[in-house]
Amino acid sequence: MDQLTLNTPLDMHLHLRDGDMLELVAPLSAETFSGAVIMPNLVPPVDSLDAVHGYRGRILQAIGKNAFAPFMTLFFRQYSEAELLAAKDHIIGIKLYPAGATTNSEAGVKAIDSVEPTIRLMEEMGMPLLIHGETHGFVMDRETEFLATYRHLATKFPKLNITMEHITTAAAVELLDEFENLRATVTLQHLLITLDDVAGGMLNPHLFCKPIAKRPEDRDALLDAALKAHPRLMFGSDSAPHPREKKECCGCAAGVFTAPIALQVLADLFTKNGCQQNLQAFVSDNARRLYDVTPAEKVVTLVREPFEVPAIYGETVVPMYAGETIPWSVQSVE
Amino acid sequence: MDQLTLNTPLDMHLHLRDGDMLELVAPLSAETFSGAVIMPNLVPPVDSLDAVHGYRGRILQAIGKNAFAPFMTLFFRQYSEAELLAAKDHIIGIKLYPAGATTNSEAGVKAIDSVEPTIRLMEEMGMPLLIHGETHGFVMDRETEFLATYRHLATKFPKLNITMEHITTAAAVELLDEFENLRATVTLQHLLITLDDVAGGMLNPHLFCKPIAKRPEDRDALLDAALKAHPRLMFGSDSAPHPREKKECCGCAAGVFTAPIALQVLADLFTKNGCQQNLQAFVSDNARRLYDVTPAEKVVTLVREPFEVPAIYGETVVPMYAGETIPWSVQSVE
Repeated sequence: MDQLTLNTPLDMHLHLRDGDMLELVAPLSAETFSGAVIMPNLVPPVDSLDAVHGYRGRILQAIGKNAFAPFMTLFFRQYSEAELLAAKDHIIGIKLYPAGATTNSEAGVKAIDSVEPTIRLMEEMGMPLLIHGETHGFVMDRETEFLATYRHLATKFPKLNITMEHITTAAAVELLDEFENLRATVTLQHLLITLDDVAGGMLNPHLFCKPIAKRPEDRDALLDAALKAHPRLMFGSDSAPHPREKKECCGCAAGVFTAPIALQVLADLFTKNGCQQNLQAFVSDNARRLYDVTPAEKVVTLVREPFEVPAIYGETVVPMYAGETIPWSVQSVE
Repeated sequence: MDQLTLNTPLDMHLHLRDGDMLELVAPLSAETFSGAVIMPNLVPPVDSLDAVHGYRGRILQAIGKNAFAPFMTLFFRQYSEAELLAAKDHIIGIKLYPAGATTNSEAGVKAIDSVEPTIRLMEEMGMPLLIHGETHGFVMDRETEFLATYRHLATKFPKLNITMEHITTAAAVELLDEFENLRATVTLQHLLITLDDVAGGMLNPHLFCKPIAKRPEDRDALLDAALKAHPRLMFGSDSAPHPREKKECCGCAAGVFTAPIALQVLADLFTKNGCQQNLQAFVSDNARRLYDVTPAEKVVTLVREPFEVPAIYGETVVPMYAGETIPWSVQSVE
């Protein structure tokens, strides 16, 4: 298996930031992906239709001539019915962050119960709820502790489509099978690494992300679900660029930058596990079906030819596998 | 409780390094401690009597006029009976590192079984075996996986005194109670922190050490055993200076530098838990009894008065609590 064609690949969880960083990283995603779910945790958060329109405009400007659909999200807060109705056709869903759980999430939700009126409206309108599912507990338990909240929401709002973003545990994969209205995204790095890669040898700030990578058995369960193209699991890179100095010299930035290498690494991972036939569903078909989106077609051909990953992009962002050679390359995008 | 007097405090696990670093850090330990067990993981390792004599001489020179007993150790390798007999009166024990488990341990032991002849000789001579007890497994499991080796050695060599160095788990505390010939040291940081402090918020390279800090219930079990002065638990700071640039900009150094603040923080910890009467045993009496050592007396008086921890020592080593104010100070040393 030396060549692989992917139709309309989608990244269902992406951070593009703003300003110079947006200019730098947006084209790197738009080059190979047909579209991406754009996270709203800017400063200030994207929590109005005006902000959505403004941000979408800046993204479209940044990607230039590439065909690329930015699926916009609102940052969760209590919204009125009128606000939601106005936003409905301009967003793919609303992203809920527990306050303080990750980068720029200080404005997030402190108690789920108190925001259920908005969630009820979303359910009625068929508007997906995307969730960063972590408690404030011990770092290795934060996701499993949050599963009770997913269970509560999935039960109480049976018609609400809930996406468990960037799942990292075997327990989350199990929960996915319990509720038809739960979907999940998983990142590239969580298919590959464990806490050992972050802090088992030396500290590796470039692999430090939230949720933190977990145990080997968690990684194995995620990889297994991805390789068999679990029908409610989607690729979402959570690719998150941070300026190098924030990563290396203080470890004060959580996120792994994978956008420019994600498809190549996935091609390697799926082919070497004999699951190449399932990659199309994982990186596109599941998402198109679950979110009912039809972005412009883009055909990406990957080949088993070494690709030297740049050590740095734009003199500021260090990607995963920086300076290393990975076995697959993008041959063409049509 | 605003004042506390400690008699002859001992640090039963200390890294002094060599050269300029030794010159910088040895006086900081010698100022308040009466003695310390000196780890032999230099490059090359301290694995001959000549090397012990040479290193001891450099330590004594570095500490100047301070009364301070460096309890020397040999780096474990297969030693002949003649070598052990010659070394016996010059060392407090032999330190065994599984190969590659921590800083400068590449020359360590690959398979315990193969070195049992040396261990047998040590048992016969009453020479303690000090062990860095970690496997090469998943980072959070390395110590618990190694407990089987402690159990094997404690059973097979019932008269061998084995020190489980820098224990970090509730399971290790439990094992300590099972075998009379097991002792343990515990560091300052493992009484205080969990993995949350290393990687739960932002990455904190200054709290990154091996073994890595574990779960809250592990920290609680260690603290409980220390506060009640478990008769076979000793304070061993594992204070490990690394040049700042190795800690901050690549995370490529494991170890926390606590020597100059250890007694002050322990005074705070024990008094605020109402266990001040047990601190003497934890920082001195247990060690003197278990190792049968009688270092020169040193009386350290601590007071509840704020101490501003320097941001850096010698322009190169960042201590725990750098730049923060801690509630207890050293008032006098006599």
